[in-house]
Amino acid sequence: MSEQVSAERRDSIEASFERQGFLHVLGAHIARLEPGRCVIELPFGKAVSQQHGFFHGGVVGALADVAGGYAAMTMVDPGRDVLSLEYKINFLRPATGAMLTAHGEVLRAGRTVIVTRVDVLDVEGRLCAAMQQSIAPAPIAA
Amino acid sequence: MSEQVSAERRDSIEASFERQGFLHVLGAHIARLEPGRCVIELPFGKAVSQQHGFFHGGVVGALADVAGGYAAMTMVDPGRDVLSLEYKINFLRPATGAMLTAHGEVLRAGRTVIVTRVDVLDVEGRLCAAMQQSIAPAPIAA
Amino acid sequence: MSEQVSAERRDSIEASFERQGFLHVLGAHIARLEPGRCVIELPFGKAVSQQHGFFHGGVVGALADVAGGYAAMTMVDPGRDVLSLEYKINFLRPATGAMLTAHGEVLRAGRTVIVTRVDVLDVEGRLCAAMQQSIAPAPIAA
Amino acid sequence: MSEQVSAERRDSIEASFERQGFLHVLGAHIARLEPGRCVIELPFGKAVSQQHGFFHGGVVGALADVAGGYAAMTMVDPGRDVLSLEYKINFLRPATGAMLTAHGEVLRAGRTVIVTRVDVLDVEGRLCAAMQQSIAPAPIAA
Repeated sequence: MSEQVSAERRDSIEASFERQGFLHVLGAHIARLEPGRCVIELPFGKAVSQQHGFFHGGVVGALADVAGGYAAMTMVDPGRDVLSLEYKINFLRPATGAMLTAHGEVLRAGRTVIVTRVDVLDVEGRLCAAMQQSIAPAPIAA
Repeated sequence: MSEQVSAERRDSIEASFERQGFLHVLGAHIARLEPGRCVIELPFGKAVSQQHGFFHGGVVGALADVAGGYAAMTMVDPGRDVLSLEYKINFLRPATGAMLTAHGEVLRAGRTVIVTRVDVLDVEGRLCAAMQQSIAPAPIAA
Repeated sequence: MSEQVSAERRDSIEASFERQGFLHVLGAHIARLEPGRCVIELPFGKAVSQQHGFFHGGVVGALADVAGGYAAMTMVDPGRDVLSLEYKINFLRPATGAMLTAHGEVLRAGRTVIVTRVDVLDVEGRLCAAMQQSIAPAPIAA
Repeated sequence: MSEQVSAERRDSIEASFERQGFLHVLGAHIARLEPGRCVIELPFGKAVSQQHGFFHGGVVGALADVAGGYAAMTMVDPGRDVLSLEYKINFLRPATGAMLTAHGEVLRAGRTVIVTRVDVLDVEGRLCAAMQQSIAPAPIAA
């Protein structure tokens, strides 16, 4: 895909990601941003693990939620923010290995609701979790 | 409800909660445990907030997931653990205030799948998020 | 609850139900309508059964979807219609017996999204299916 | 994909589809069956429409549920049946036109739970609805 996200849009998404803190602090970063798509990478570490040494399910859910949210954010006007209305996630296998990658994709960008799908893959490309999500465009909070 | 969770079951759930770390570290605690029910409280703080000063959506999802999981865990044999198969969460209003409370309840405990509902309330009793979740009984990991 | 749905609102919901045809033809009817609530009853019959003689899962899903949709419709202006944005349903036990009853309840009525929960019960009051659903207010189609 | 579903498996799926009646009677048929995949086509008609002349949402949900279920059924032993545990569907645009096609795909076939995704497309290839679903292998009912 040769389309590009505008520099203004990209800056506002990167700034939002840094402000969010939660995943940013855990070491996640935006690996790719295209119109309707966002890929986020999260390296493994103690802060994101659960008792069995896997990535924590809550972290996997948050990672997928954020990837879908920023994929949606590429489709709204640069001056606007997005909010998660709802999501549904299936956990397919334990999330293990050195890094997780969440691939968010917009299925349909409506005026009041944007629907996305997100795949969370391990380093061997196995699908660990699958999400469907509804996002609402929202005013930027002051 | 006058029924009680056995001391053995309660100990194993409390121990699991402490091992999980993620929410435990954030200051969450189990406020109530009955057969088929679990209430978890999470005080507000910087680590659980997002850019607008609300509870972070990822944290709200993880809190609900854990409350449903432990409600389910009261229904399985003490020597067993539980795993989230899938959940779906609707965010109804921004989660604000000094504390969130997640009320997990088992709707149906089957042999291979336990279905729960979880309500996440703020201190004024307003419903902030609603979850439906499928949990699988699982062997305790070594 | 002593609140009542206005006669105008009730007429428009009843008319919509009859126009919808699908469930109406199968013999379903609206048993109760209050602000934020709708109960629909569906008697058993050949047209709603599957190969094992239970209510068909697709029919159970449609029944729940409609009960939540009309619960939501009590909350919008009488001149407006509603559309299902998404729903999630868990099937808890085979739906059997002489009649199913779907109880739809509005959890939160926002301006662009209304969130509902629906319980589908058999004649013995057992929970057969549980739904969470997002509904959008919409203009009446010409 | 050159893999094929065994003749025995295919016969048992076709027979199940005919026994189910509901969609079969509405004129739906299995257009394609491969290991982990099932495509079902449903022509438009009065029996599957709602008040605005579109495919009825309940029918779209049932169509997607069945396509995912048979995709899952290709992955279980020929002597076994499948049951829907839960599904979640997002409606992306009104389903219109002469025919709908539901493409079910297995994401992960576990021993007790099989997870699928289903896309429902119109004749122009537009995505009308997207589903994620959990299926359980089950004994054949007598």
